[in-house]
Formats: sequence, structure tokens, C-alpha cells
Amino acid sequence: MIKNAKDFKFEILKKDKKTKARLSRITTAHGIIETPAFVPVGTKATVKGLTPQDLNEAEVQILFGNTYHLHLRPGEDVVKDFGGLAKFMSWNKPTITDSGGFQVFSLGQLKLKLTQEGECTEVKAVNIKDEGVTFRSHMDGSKHLFTPEISIDIQKKLGADLILAFDECAPHPSTHDYTKEAMERTHKWALRSLKASKIKQYHPWQQALYGIIQGGIYKNLREESAKFISKLDFDGIAIGGVSVGESKAEMRQAIDWSYPFLPEDKPRHLLGIGEIDDIFDVIERGMDTFDCVIPTRFGRYGIVFVDPSVGNLENRFRIDLNKTIFAKDKNPISKDCKCYVCQNFTRGYTHHLFRAQELLAYRLASYHNMFFVNNLVKQIRQSLRDDNFGEMKKSWLG
Amino acid sequence: MIKNAKDFKFEILKKDKKTKARLSRITTAHGIIETPAFVPVGTKATVKGLTPQDLNEAEVQILFGNTYHLHLRPGEDVVKDFGGLAKFMSWNKPTITDSGGFQVFSLGQLKLKLTQEGECTEVKAVNIKDEGVTFRSHMDGSKHLFTPEISIDIQKKLGADLILAFDECAPHPSTHDYTKEAMERTHKWALRSLKASKIKQYHPWQQALYGIIQGGIYKNLREESAKFISKLDFDGIAIGGVSVGESKAEMRQAIDWSYPFLPEDKPRHLLGIGEIDDIFDVIERGMDTFDCVIPTRFGRYGIVFVDPSVGNLENRFRIDLNKTIFAKDKNPISKDCKCYVCQNFTRGYTHHLFRAQELLAYRLASYHNMFFVNNLVKQIRQSLRDDNFGEMKKSWLG
Repeated sequence: MIKNAKDFKFEILKKDKKTKARLSRITTAHGIIETPAFVPVGTKATVKGLTPQDLNEAEVQILFGNTYHLHLRPGEDVVKDFGGLAKFMSWNKPTITDSGGFQVFSLGQLKLKLTQEGECTEVKAVNIKDEGVTFRSHMDGSKHLFTPEISIDIQKKLGADLILAFDECAPHPSTHDYTKEAMERTHKWALRSLKASKIKQYHPWQQALYGIIQGGIYKNLREESAKFISKLDFDGIAIGGVSVGESKAEMRQAIDWSYPFLPEDKPRHLLGIGEIDDIFDVIERGMDTFDCVIPTRFGRYGIVFVDPSVGNLENRFRIDLNKTIFAKDKNPISKDCKCYVCQNFTRGYTHHLFRAQELLAYRLASYHNMFFVNNLVKQIRQSLRDDNFGEMKKSWLG
Repeated sequence: MIKNAKDFKFEILKKDKKTKARLSRITTAHGIIETPAFVPVGTKATVKGLTPQDLNEAEVQILFGNTYHLHLRPGEDVVKDFGGLAKFMSWNKPTITDSGGFQVFSLGQLKLKLTQEGECTEVKAVNIKDEGVTFRSHMDGSKHLFTPEISIDIQKKLGADLILAFDECAPHPSTHDYTKEAMERTHKWALRSLKASKIKQYHPWQQALYGIIQGGIYKNLREESAKFISKLDFDGIAIGGVSVGESKAEMRQAIDWSYPFLPEDKPRHLLGIGEIDDIFDVIERGMDTFDCVIPTRFGRYGIVFVDPSVGNLENRFRIDLNKTIFAKDKNPISKDCKCYVCQNFTRGYTHHLFRAQELLAYRLASYHNMFFVNNLVKQIRQSLRDDNFGEMKKSWLG
């Protein structure tokens, strides 16, 4: 680990001639991230069902932890005491944490409560003010306050290499008026996050701070937010609120509207994206990293990714292992996949495990999906090196 | 794989001078088992949460599959079609299946049913006759019949290297009369199992047939059963019904009463035993192999094994990772353990995973327990080679 040095560095290695895609390298105290890179989510300091060894086999380069969950359990002080998030979970590579904002709003938005008359009513469990947000834990109902200063302090204790400014991610749908109000609050919080990031350091390595662009589905707000955030002294730029919309077109627009204002020399992270076609879309729109729970969440449901010999835009490169048609199928999940699961198990066997609700089912499917997605992004990096990203995309999406 | 040959072979390599323990080697078409050997249980063609790779790392030599479960799902014809149990689950080493009897009796014994008057009543879901047993599936209530002939045919299709005669395991407590009746039925079924085993072969390798000694907690019955079963032309001898009793003393007695009648030149399997002190006890009583669900079942509850620096007869060599005292514990689960989990994770981290009910919790604890138990038995084999089994036992049990 590099100490007493500027650990964080961003270098562009190559730009694609036909798209906005780029090859770059992010250097952190815990190692290097070659981009474009997929960032698996390890919400509670674990990528569900998988070990660091599995993630290394999938050539994962960086993990995403959720500040909201880690604050509630085991608590940032415990994680700090164990040497930070990476060491706590025995992942000796780079990590990134979010600000906690997204979960506060999505998990705490509305709660059902019984009135004195015994009727069920909705109460707002989240109270948003310019100062910050009070919310109740989804676990035990306890009351908590997140402000930019608190979020940054928690993230400093968690000790990820990349951390995010505190933001408000407005729900979908939201009016133009409300989205504007949330965006303006996000901008004020960006300034306070920047200031707070300079106050205290709990770990001996640099933690690079990313600002977050919001603005919902409104072009003028996305542009205004991109301009504002891009001008500030952040180490990187994240685009938020694109996974809460209803259509993929909205996600693409949010990136395209922001793009003209993004600084060339800072890494760009897209929050919450990761289906197969999305991956091509966000890379060719100039994003460097992007995180998603899909490989493990789909895996737990028996939804697994398949290569273009079977997969296409229509089936979204997925098959459902629960289906009876796989009961006697002696093929691996995905024909050309080199992962441990595809090299050792049949669809028939994994189908049986899902039917029997065996723990191994969730693990094997998650492992395959994790390997599959990271391998796809690795192939995309190679295609950018070889100047054939366009053809590679065509061979997948047609 | 050896084809068209007598695949099964049993050789005694060494006998302990002070106890009945012995070192031996069982050869099967799928490989060799060095005994004494622990046999992990993979009920539904999976050792819960663990891959064949994990089991290889734990130096597991043979797996135990449950005929009752595999018959109900995915069905013996599916397993046969996939090349037998070992190949189906990508475990390319020896396997053993039970007769299905134990599960039929323990899972199907009594069911609750609503009477026409709306009252809850117990009904016997198992109907035992000399011909065989009719029972209802615990999954969907469907009616099934197991006879010695059917059990052997299913096991032949499953294709394990070692298979068991169909037996009746009387529940505990049972009267002397009923235990005698069940034992006599078991003896008749032993003869029918032997005959049935010669009828049909679905796989090209030899499947060695073990007879089962029953007789409950009654000395005269255990002796009678041991005499009867030992005289028959079985390839190996199993002792059943020792895990259903209430005390460990009963388990030891059942072995000791049977022992004088056991043929020297056949392998001996003890059904359903595997706590740390039991392992020493059954090995020094001359058992060669013994199966148990404990490593993974305990693992899923957060109960993990610890070496004698912490473990003893009083705490049964276990700690409970759920306990708050482990929240900040930076030690590995077991100080001297060389397993992947102990080499990479703290008790504090695994405690967090159990509190958060994360899939990885069950996996890591199961992995450690599996490694721990197999490593212990490996050490016992070494102590028998080195003529210091007694000292080794003392260093564990005092």
C-alpha cells in the first residue's frame, strides 16, 4: 500500500475513434482498475454468496459497498477498527462506497402504520431538509440523521478508495419542480461534501471523492447539474438517478445530456446499471465504471446469462434455470463460458438445485453471472484495444 | 474408471495395538477411500452450500447421498441418465447411498390432519408390512412404496459405489417387542436385498452392498442382528439406529455389543455419527467409515468447530458465531486451522455475516467445519500410522 503519497491517479490510455468509449486506468492505494470496468455490489460487505476468491476468479477489480447498510450493521466504527472495508471483508483490492442517500430514499420513503382507529395509513419515514435527512432504519425502526458531513465521515471510516458526495436521488416519477428542488439540494450538499472530505482522515490512504450529477428525466436539469458538478474540485464524476427511471431510453438520455459538460480528465461512474445491452450502451457513451447488483440478484432467482449462441436482445441474454425444459439438459449454462460452473455442471444439475432450493443453487448461478459479466467487459476492453468495439458489439446485439 | 472388473476391494493396512482401531483402504471404481474416513452427507446430490472443489480442498474422499430424497427429486431415472450420482453432481470420487428406510420412517412417521369435525389429529403416514413400506412424500403428499427390491433398484440406478440393504430403523424409544419385530423384518429384507442386488445393473461398475445391523438399545437384539447380518454374503457391514438414541453411551454400547460378531475382512460403516468426541469413540471401536450432516448443519446455524486451544469436551469443540462477543474478534475461527476461511476471515467478519443473514455466512461456516472434521480424521489416520493414536486422543479429549 502506498502511504503518504497521492494514491489516486486517473490516466486515459486510448479513445475509441467511432464512439465516446475510452480505455483508462484508475490507480488507488489498493490497486489498479482497468476501465471500462464493471463494479459488483457487496451491500453488506459481502457480494451475496461469493468469496473474494470467487471474485478474483471472475477478475473483478473493485467492489461497491453501501454506506446505509454498513452504517446500520456492523457500523462504521467496527469496519474502521478492522482496517477498513476491504480488509474487513478480506478483499485486498479497491473499493467504492456510495453516500447512503439512495438507500435512505428508496428503503425509507414510505412506511405503513396503524392509526388509533386500527386503520392502515402511510407515513413519511424520511424527512428531507436542506440540513440533511432523518430516516428510520428498515431493520429496527431506529431514527438516524444523514447530512453531507455525516455521510462523508462514515465513508472516511469505512475507508473505501473511492467515495461519493451526499446527494438526493428523487424518486420516479417526480415533477420538474421537485426534481429541480432535489437537484439544487444535491448541489449544496456537493459543496458541503467537498468541504467535509478535507476535515478528517482515519486511514493512511487517499480516498478520492466523486460528485454526483442528478436532474431526473429533465434535459435542462441534467445539463445544469452536469455543468455545476463538473466545475467543482471532485476527483471523479458520477451520474445518479438513471436506474430509477422506467425506460432504458431515459438512462441513455441522462448520460447524453450530461456528456458535453463532463471533464475529460476525470473518471466517470454510472450508478446502478448492468444488464448486457446496458453495458455496451454506457461504455460507448463514455462511462468508465458502472455498478450493479444484477449478477447476484438474478443468480439467486435462477436467471443466468448466456452467450450470443443462445442469447439475444429479445431474451436479454438470459435463461431461467427453474424451467422444466432444463431438467434433462446436459449442456453447461453457457456454451463458451470458461467459468468453474460451466466447466463442471450441467443445466440439468443446476435446475435440480433450484427446484430443491439448495444453497448451492444460488451460489453457482451467482458465480456464473459474475464471471460472465466481468468477462464480457474484459472482452470489451480488448476490443477497444484492438479497434473493433463496433464489431464486437454487433456480434452481441446484432 | 475400471470396467468389467471387480471394482470393490477392502484391505486392512494396520491394526492399532491398544484399541480396535484400524487403518484400511477401500477401493471402488471411482477411487480409493483411506479409512478411518468421515463421509459428508449430500442429501439431495449436494453437500449443502459446498462445491466439489470445496470438498476436495477439505480432502473429502466419499460422499453420502439419500435415496429417499433423490427418489422424490430429481428421480433415480434422471440421475441414471446423467451417468449416476457422482457424475450428476460433478463429484468424480466414490459415493454411498442409504436404502431410504431411515428417511421413510423419520420423515413420514406421523402427520397432522384435520378431521371432518375440524379437529387436528395425528395419522400414520407410514404403513409398514413385511412386503415393504408405503409412505407419503414430505414434499407433496404423494404415495410411494419402498420394498427391498425397489430400494435396491433405485440405488442401482443412482449408481453409488457402496449401497445399503433396505432396513427398518425403529424409532426411539421402542419396546423390546417392537424392536425385535423390526429387526426380524430387517433380517428378511437383508436377504431380499442381497437377492435383488444380483438382478440388474445399470452402470458398468460394481456396487458393493452393505448389510445393516439393527436391534435398538437391547443387547440380545444387537448381538442377534450382528450375528445374522455378519454371516450373510454382504461386501460390508453397517450399524444402524445408533443416532436415534438419546445418549452417546447407547451409541457406544450398540457398537460394542455388535463388535464381537463383525467379520474382520469387511469394511464397517456407522450410520449418522460425527461429533468430535464421537469420531474418536467410533474409530477406537473399530469402525472404518461414518457419515454425518453435522459440519454443514451446524455451519448453517453459525456453530463452528475449534481446536483444543479453545475447544474441549465441555464446549464440545464449538463456538457460536452469532454471539456478540465475537463482533470485534480479529482472530480466525480456529487458531491452527489451515482452511481458506481461517486463513482469510476473522470471527468478527463471519459474526457480521450471520447477523446480516448473508448467504456467505452459511457457506464459510460449512466450509470451515467440513475442512476441520476431515482434517481431524486425517490426523487420526496419521496417528494410527505413527502408533500414537492414544496420545493424539488425549491431546483432544484430555
